[in-house]
Amino acid sequence: MTSLDSATEPASKPAPKPARELPDVSQLVVGVLGGTGDQGRGLALRLARAGQQVIIGSRDAARAEAAAAGLGDGLGVRGADNATVARESDVVIVAVPWDGHAATLSALREELAGKIVVDCVNPLGFDKQGAYALKPEEGSAAQQAAALLPDSRVTAAFHHLSAVLLQDESVERIDTDVMVLGEERAATDVVQALAERIPGMRGVFAGRLRNAHQVEALVANLISVNRRYKAHAGLRITDV
Amino acid sequence: MTSLDSATEPASKPAPKPARELPDVSQLVVGVLGGTGDQGRGLALRLARAGQQVIIGSRDAARAEAAAAGLGDGLGVRGADNATVARESDVVIVAVPWDGHAATLSALREELAGKIVVDCVNPLGFDKQGAYALKPEEGSAAQQAAALLPDSRVTAAFHHLSAVLLQDESVERIDTDVMVLGEERAATDVVQALAERIPGMRGVFAGRLRNAHQVEALVANLISVNRRYKAHAGLRITDV
Repeated sequence: MTSLDSATEPASKPAPKPARELPDVSQLVVGVLGGTGDQGRGLALRLARAGQQVIIGSRDAARAEAAAAGLGDGLGVRGADNATVARESDVVIVAVPWDGHAATLSALREELAGKIVVDCVNPLGFDKQGAYALKPEEGSAAQQAAALLPDSRVTAAFHHLSAVLLQDESVERIDTDVMVLGEERAATDVVQALAERIPGMRGVFAGRLRNAHQVEALVANLISVNRRYKAHAGLRITDV
Repeated sequence: MTSLDSATEPASKPAPKPARELPDVSQLVVGVLGGTGDQGRGLALRLARAGQQVIIGSRDAARAEAAAAGLGDGLGVRGADNATVARESDVVIVAVPWDGHAATLSALREELAGKIVVDCVNPLGFDKQGAYALKPEEGSAAQQAAALLPDSRVTAAFHHLSAVLLQDESVERIDTDVMVLGEERAATDVVQALAERIPGMRGVFAGRLRNAHQVEALVANLISVNRRYKAHAGLRITDV
């Protein structure tokens, strides 16, 4: 079989770990497309609580404003239509339903030009046996985003978070790692740093976009874990 | 987007976790097809050190015997040709190279009838950008095994282990979770219990075989992690 270690040297003594220095992202404006959904609202809440400036986006500006208001005063979260959010943000998290993914992004190509786009969409189907992975023609939701947004800096991250935990105000820490994928190190570093603004989270670089499908699809497995163990499962990567 | 929690109830107060009682597997004989490779030899070593009776298999009985002898005296590991191993084992781990997977299993259909088969093969390709997932026609290596072995109890597990750590005699514990997939609970329970014989490991049920592809393919991401962080990455599932 193909070994996990094929690309690494044998290490009897652990080598010193490379520094995990990431940029300061505290001044970046983060937009969340699909910010009225559970995952989007949860991420908006967590990032805003961490001091990030956040704008929630929706097709309908009024719904976005209502969702932003619902997060409570003092966090400074605004709501706006998707195009405004895309224009006014430095980093744009895509948390729309999979069936609206292509249409939403196609319509925002100009507004998203030059922006760091963070796709966190999991294309899944459900039947009576539970969840299963859908395989987008482009390979993954993230690759679809990259194809539709040739002028954006597309990354993928935040797939494995429990929207229940994200939205639960009584939960202080979310102890999980965030796998971050992308082609350009400066962009993935920003996304890792953004993940690490949230207490308990770590951003871990986990490959190029061509390997995004399995990261998205793994949510089907975590749903099985959740069912079996009545859990809100997340992932930690060991030895990093 | 499709939320990770869609199949679980909201839980403001954590529900009591279901018991993780697993069967006693200490008396089962474990065969390892492809036991002369790094992953197979590593698994054989760990299971034998845990007190399991282990037989290493290879197309060539002499090579299997040599690999078994190489693990040292006192562990009681034997070597034999693949067919003998399949016949004499209760649980058979498939750790052959992906390109020999279909042929090896096709030839052992009768010997593997009724046995618990544990596929841990990761179909990957490599190019100058690193590793990428191959997509078997059947969906995954595990589904290919299930198609070729209709009379066996096929499961999938042990994908994300570092062969370097497995084989390093100075490493006492392997702190990682083993995702176990399969259609039949009695079989996946045995495989989980087997994983838990190894100090530090936990067996976690992670879905049906139709969701095996992403578990196999995720090794490509862990290889990226290993490169970036000079690590021997593994996974832990949180909240279980």
